[in-house]
Amino acid sequence: MKPRILVVGTGAIGGFYGGKLAQAGASVSTLCRSDYEVVKSKGITVTSTLGDFQFTPEKVIRDLGEYGPPPDYILVGLKVLPEIDTAEIIREVVGPETAIVLLQNGVEIEEPVARTYPDNEIISGLAFICATRTSPGHIDHTDFGRVVIGRYPAGKSVEVEELARLFNEAGLKCEVTEDAVTARWRKLVWNAPFNPISVLGGGADTKTMMENPESLELARKVMEEVCRIAEAAGHPLPEEVVQQNIDGTRAMAPYKSSMLVDFEAGRPMEVEAILGSGLRVAKRHGVSAPHMESLYGLLKLVDKKIRGQEK
Amino acid sequence: MKPRILVVGTGAIGGFYGGKLAQAGASVSTLCRSDYEVVKSKGITVTSTLGDFQFTPEKVIRDLGEYGPPPDYILVGLKVLPEIDTAEIIREVVGPETAIVLLQNGVEIEEPVARTYPDNEIISGLAFICATRTSPGHIDHTDFGRVVIGRYPAGKSVEVEELARLFNEAGLKCEVTEDAVTARWRKLVWNAPFNPISVLGGGADTKTMMENPESLELARKVMEEVCRIAEAAGHPLPEEVVQQNIDGTRAMAPYKSSMLVDFEAGRPMEVEAILGSGLRVAKRHGVSAPHMESLYGLLKLVDKKIRGQEK
Repeated sequence: MKPRILVVGTGAIGGFYGGKLAQAGASVSTLCRSDYEVVKSKGITVTSTLGDFQFTPEKVIRDLGEYGPPPDYILVGLKVLPEIDTAEIIREVVGPETAIVLLQNGVEIEEPVARTYPDNEIISGLAFICATRTSPGHIDHTDFGRVVIGRYPAGKSVEVEELARLFNEAGLKCEVTEDAVTARWRKLVWNAPFNPISVLGGGADTKTMMENPESLELARKVMEEVCRIAEAAGHPLPEEVVQQNIDGTRAMAPYKSSMLVDFEAGRPMEVEAILGSGLRVAKRHGVSAPHMESLYGLLKLVDKKIRGQEK
Repeated sequence: MKPRILVVGTGAIGGFYGGKLAQAGASVSTLCRSDYEVVKSKGITVTSTLGDFQFTPEKVIRDLGEYGPPPDYILVGLKVLPEIDTAEIIREVVGPETAIVLLQNGVEIEEPVARTYPDNEIISGLAFICATRTSPGHIDHTDFGRVVIGRYPAGKSVEVEELARLFNEAGLKCEVTEDAVTARWRKLVWNAPFNPISVLGGGADTKTMMENPESLELARKVMEEVCRIAEAAGHPLPEEVVQQNIDGTRAMAPYKSSMLVDFEAGRPMEVEAILGSGLRVAKRHGVSAPHMESLYGLLKLVDKKIRGQEK
């Protein structure tokens, strides 16, 4: 039977992976807000290094009440912002058998959802992808695409296995982990330096950040801090992870981070997911993270300004 | 006899203090580049909280060869940038009796000048002032104005005393110090946090930086680092200096730092004077300054971008 999947938060991540899961044969619907009209009439157009494709959702809904019986999976691609309460947003469509997939940035983001739905399967997911929603109904996928998924807080599950099978059938690399929390820290090693520096450094792409010795040095220091916090929190990362991230970033096509895309569009940034969440863990464990702290202090100022101009 | 003073670098600092010294009876001339035509024909108009005034220089020159016999004082108000070699720029007008007054930002900026002119009196000066060159020939002085001057590297001199007398006669507070190097570190306590944060925080004035708890915290950390470096370098500052700077900044009329003014005008910023010079001392003495390091890494990126767009 085709699994029924509802994508909540149909930006670049939700739209791309939702579309891929539809290619693999799942029945994928999308909850859209600002893009509703366009997606309803024309679907989502994805230009992709893996081959362009068109994603026509099973249903395009503006309100969860329109969806029908609870889905097998809710794929959450929402931004992680203090004002976005994921657990509340999805409440209407969470059935007893619904697995909740959090394909989002940050550490410790699963807790509020797991607390609200203690009997549901929570799948923690990480998207290693360069993709941008360029306009309503349009996504540009420029590099990578691998996903890492795992049961939260740890272990195996049939739901995770089934989802991985779908991703693989769609031609995506999907890695199943029994330690999703550590995988989340591992991703933060990239996000914590490069997202903030790209914004604070005056709008720098990955190439610019790598070429400038002072910003590269800063990125390395931030990565080392993330590793120290992860270790203190009981999720040690392999020693080579910092150098791997640096080498990997150097090998990338020049890329604008998602935070920079948000900044340039005048949208609130994931400051708390990318830096605040890690810093709170650092504080709890008495780990010093002055470089992250500095980026955080500056980004809060910038984010406040953006939010002030939004209104 | 009226002292003859030549102002080199006639921006907000050079123009304001040059004008004040002229009010006190000195014969003040100015070397101008971009502002030459305006200053030559109309002088410099200063709007000031101490009373507006007009400054008509004795001579306005575009080239040092036009000046005549060496002056008693050269008042240097040039920006401190790696490409600006103050010692070379003033060479043509330095006579055996000329005192060189460096009214500039940063630490250890006197050394190259002192090395080039070992027999001349070098006066290290600090301007505590909120003043901006708003257009060619126009300066807006919005707050403060005190100067601290002292013989470099230390001690007393008649040249310093005479200059102080002139500043006082012009109605300015002028403090003479026998330890100008420590005074320079003391000024860096303000400059090192607030100049960079104002730029990196998305264009924040002092009020905005003080109101946001994360940026205030960052400013405090940077101040503490400056104090630790100063102490390691043999120039300990009084313990209360951090809190004094915070209280003083809170009491200020909202002010755009000089670095922010440069940034918004697309001009190179004093990154090396404000952060690089202090960080080099930190490194030499093995003092950790991760918050300053972070600001430095980011500002280098921003400054590189500005310089790329200038051409």
